[in-house]
Amino acid sequence: VLSVPGSPQSGPTSVRSQRVTAVRRLANGPFRRSVGRFLIEGPQAVREAVAHRPDVVDEVFVVTPPDEVSGPIARAAAEAAVPVTEVPEPVLLAMTETVHPQGIAAVGRFLDRPATEVVTGAALVVLLDQIRDPGNAGTVLRTADAAGADGVILSQGSVDPYNGKCVRSTAGSLFHVPFAADESSMGVIATARAAGLRVLAATGAGATSLVDADLRPPTLWVFGNEARGLDPELVAAADERVSIPIYGRAESLNLAAAAAVCLYASAMAQR
Amino acid sequence: VLSVPGSPQSGPTSVRSQRVTAVRRLANGPFRRSVGRFLIEGPQAVREAVAHRPDVVDEVFVVTPPDEVSGPIARAAAEAAVPVTEVPEPVLLAMTETVHPQGIAAVGRFLDRPATEVVTGAALVVLLDQIRDPGNAGTVLRTADAAGADGVILSQGSVDPYNGKCVRSTAGSLFHVPFAADESSMGVIATARAAGLRVLAATGAGATSLVDADLRPPTLWVFGNEARGLDPELVAAADERVSIPIYGRAESLNLAAAAAVCLYASAMAQR
Repeated sequence: VLSVPGSPQSGPTSVRSQRVTAVRRLANGPFRRSVGRFLIEGPQAVREAVAHRPDVVDEVFVVTPPDEVSGPIARAAAEAAVPVTEVPEPVLLAMTETVHPQGIAAVGRFLDRPATEVVTGAALVVLLDQIRDPGNAGTVLRTADAAGADGVILSQGSVDPYNGKCVRSTAGSLFHVPFAADESSMGVIATARAAGLRVLAATGAGATSLVDADLRPPTLWVFGNEARGLDPELVAAADERVSIPIYGRAESLNLAAAAAVCLYASAMAQR
Repeated sequence: VLSVPGSPQSGPTSVRSQRVTAVRRLANGPFRRSVGRFLIEGPQAVREAVAHRPDVVDEVFVVTPPDEVSGPIARAAAEAAVPVTEVPEPVLLAMTETVHPQGIAAVGRFLDRPATEVVTGAALVVLLDQIRDPGNAGTVLRTADAAGADGVILSQGSVDPYNGKCVRSTAGSLFHVPFAADESSMGVIATARAAGLRVLAATGAGATSLVDADLRPPTLWVFGNEARGLDPELVAAADERVSIPIYGRAESLNLAAAAAVCLYASAMAQR
């Protein structure tokens, strides 16, 4: 699908080649969606992609000669039958968004799945509604992974999970945790409830304190926009409205911090 | 100290005026330190500064005419005897770092205090060693505030707490929570221990799981650099080495998420 003429062996050597340009265009959201592919930058992300989801990795690009960090990752890719192309450093820099891709990058195929699949049989899932900051979305995905959650769902109007900053913020967790994107939040709540999950709306105005909430049953946590908070329709649709106690004078917690507190509270209660 | 000629009443009306230039220079760290002043941008930060620490606010600048958001904050400032200057919008934009200061900004005086003061009589304090990301530092300060912590200490080599991005990330908590900056971490650990606090090093390699740690005694939490983790010398100097359990496949948590989990665990255990 991605227009990258030439076999992997005859790698691109010019920063102006069509293949380099095609990879570089993955920084653009509409182009990403039109080809269903995204850029995976840096050793940690490429290593995790190759280790956990080689099936979605189209091609790995590594600066020639590979070094002690990029070399083992390139070998692991080759062993997983992922095409590996060595390129001069300026070519990798021309392909990538970050200032320091650290010698390795890859093109991956979209790996989100339908929300129905994410919630089925799950014990702990996060729904992010109208989340705008890619760093927040990526950090929540990473935290959900650490907390052993079964999945993350991004609503319509939320940030694109394949945005470069989001991918980097997941620190590889994008390839560990099942996730869905561009979903109707009301639809997800209905699906999750039908799958046996309790729906907890995280909201500062929640009548139930996190300290008192029963977090043992299978749970869908719902978090809202960074500035406006959770949509009243979603607050009303939840089974319970839960607030994190504020012991000091802060008005609220940052979204990623709030999600960390709630997800770990759930993870610990469920174990 | 800050070279801003002209009385508050004869406010700056030109984007090129010396006063505007002096305020704009507060975006520069060495200049900030030379004058001991920093920029407070946007309604939330200015509101919290005026409400909680009017003693450190030199002057508030508000776009003329004040609107329904900036007006009440400007009035509160005036009532607290803080000089308020109305300026045309281009002047406020020329003074500030953010694209949208939302009609209000202020100049504040440094309000950090010695670490000894922060730990004395405290039940919960955070030490951030070699933290480099201003967003992380600010988010931890905000989270510490929400968790009812008594203070935050930044080590030598950590980000400047008066950096614009850090100030914004605190969402006003910079004016709620006592904090220290540019401290020797080993010195802080000794001082905290002398003040009766237990020193807990947050480290993925910690032998004690957060689930099993006794978090009721007065505690100093120590967190290390985002990429390298905690310095071995500090790990060794702690009373206990605590790890957040990783239930999934993530390698670690993001610093701000880890701090949120640990600080809330402490806050809940201490209540």
